[in-house]
Amino acid sequence: MPRFAMKIDYDGGPFNGWQRQAQGQPSVQAAIEGALARLEPGPHTIAAAGRTDTGVHGTGQVAHCDLTRDWDPFRLSEALNFHLRPLPVAVTACAAVPEDFHARFSAMERRYLFRLIARRAPLTHDRGLAWQVNHRLDAAAMRAGAAHLVGHHDFTTFRSTMCQAKSPVKTIDEITIEEIPLEAGVEYRFHLRARSFLHNQVRSIVGTLERVGAGAWAPERVGAALAARDRAACGPVCPPQGLYLTGVGYPVDPFQT
Amino acid sequence: MPRFAMKIDYDGGPFNGWQRQAQGQPSVQAAIEGALARLEPGPHTIAAAGRTDTGVHGTGQVAHCDLTRDWDPFRLSEALNFHLRPLPVAVTACAAVPEDFHARFSAMERRYLFRLIARRAPLTHDRGLAWQVNHRLDAAAMRAGAAHLVGHHDFTTFRSTMCQAKSPVKTIDEITIEEIPLEAGVEYRFHLRARSFLHNQVRSIVGTLERVGAGAWAPERVGAALAARDRAACGPVCPPQGLYLTGVGYPVDPFQT
Repeated sequence: MPRFAMKIDYDGGPFNGWQRQAQGQPSVQAAIEGALARLEPGPHTIAAAGRTDTGVHGTGQVAHCDLTRDWDPFRLSEALNFHLRPLPVAVTACAAVPEDFHARFSAMERRYLFRLIARRAPLTHDRGLAWQVNHRLDAAAMRAGAAHLVGHHDFTTFRSTMCQAKSPVKTIDEITIEEIPLEAGVEYRFHLRARSFLHNQVRSIVGTLERVGAGAWAPERVGAALAARDRAACGPVCPPQGLYLTGVGYPVDPFQT
Repeated sequence: MPRFAMKIDYDGGPFNGWQRQAQGQPSVQAAIEGALARLEPGPHTIAAAGRTDTGVHGTGQVAHCDLTRDWDPFRLSEALNFHLRPLPVAVTACAAVPEDFHARFSAMERRYLFRLIARRAPLTHDRGLAWQVNHRLDAAAMRAGAAHLVGHHDFTTFRSTMCQAKSPVKTIDEITIEEIPLEAGVEYRFHLRARSFLHNQVRSIVGTLERVGAGAWAPERVGAALAARDRAACGPVCPPQGLYLTGVGYPVDPFQT
């Protein structure tokens, strides 16, 4: 059976996360599997690089599917988008991949963006697309706090108690924080990059760094929290609507044309 | 009566434009006048720098109001935002201004942004927030076309036949076009700046430049269309959802703290 990789863009707002739900609540996976079933009789089970939580967005999620027909990749993406309407899910690229390509297990890197907007007035255009706080933040302090987390560490403090990963040890290759002045307020864009992340790791990190930016935590406390290897030492986990899975890296980019 | 200037941010999607409607359809002006009436008995009639059309957004709209109480500007913005909920309208700043300040007639400059996204797959997060075309555009050609429009000209070709301005002569001080690669597709941000604009002028210009970017028009045809002073020579007027009134300039910025 020919295998295809799909690059997927979605607004996480109306979905109970990526993963298909036993009780049939809306999920991004079920939406795409439903569109696939319109092209070839199912059932279809697709695998994704990142199983994003409820409310979390994707701009560069990658999943793979197995089909019987030898689809032209462009026509496949067009047909899927036709059947995905009017849901806020779009397949932005398809590619034929070798049988041993696996969207999750072949992935060598995940890239996430977290959008945090600091301003008093309620959000308008960015509702559901960013996390808002109504106080000022100190970007330099947040960067100093983040520096404690980059590298190879035991991230027990920064993972959900529900996390199913065997080991809490991960390597974060990048945490950079952009500070973007808006017409009203300031947007902070956190860019995180690692081979893989633990459950709630990004939201635990950003929620903790926000406390540093607000002045409630000294930057050094982030290092102490990490060293504690204790979930109770973590700052508050921030809400999901600012989080975007922006890209996935593979040994060979399946979408390179 | 103390006069206040308000800086206003809104998602134009749910509104029939800025201006209060005779038949009571939702408008941004009516929303703010309604919030003012919760603070002081009305009726209130506010004046804005730009009377944006149905679906057009604001991030830096400015309006003024007259109140009886000598409000603290910060408390006034907080109270207005409280009463504007849950509408996607927010007052991002308030300022006490002299009696002769008029949001429309004192304005010396209007700044608009138009967001155009070129990609095949349907939009997800930017639905209602940008105009989408599903073909590639040539930014250099659009810039060459735009160069014909900057400066002092008779813009009869580029205004609505409904436009009520006495003269079609305007001076455009800036048309710059940013080209921003997205995870999927390319976004073009048109920045336009002038003392004032004619009705549908920005959408007529962007709709015409899109034709240039698509290769359907040579850049020189924009100059010929301008010289024709004939509405029939204009390209298609593009849809409103990509347009944002981002800022208004005054001799003295009322919001400067």
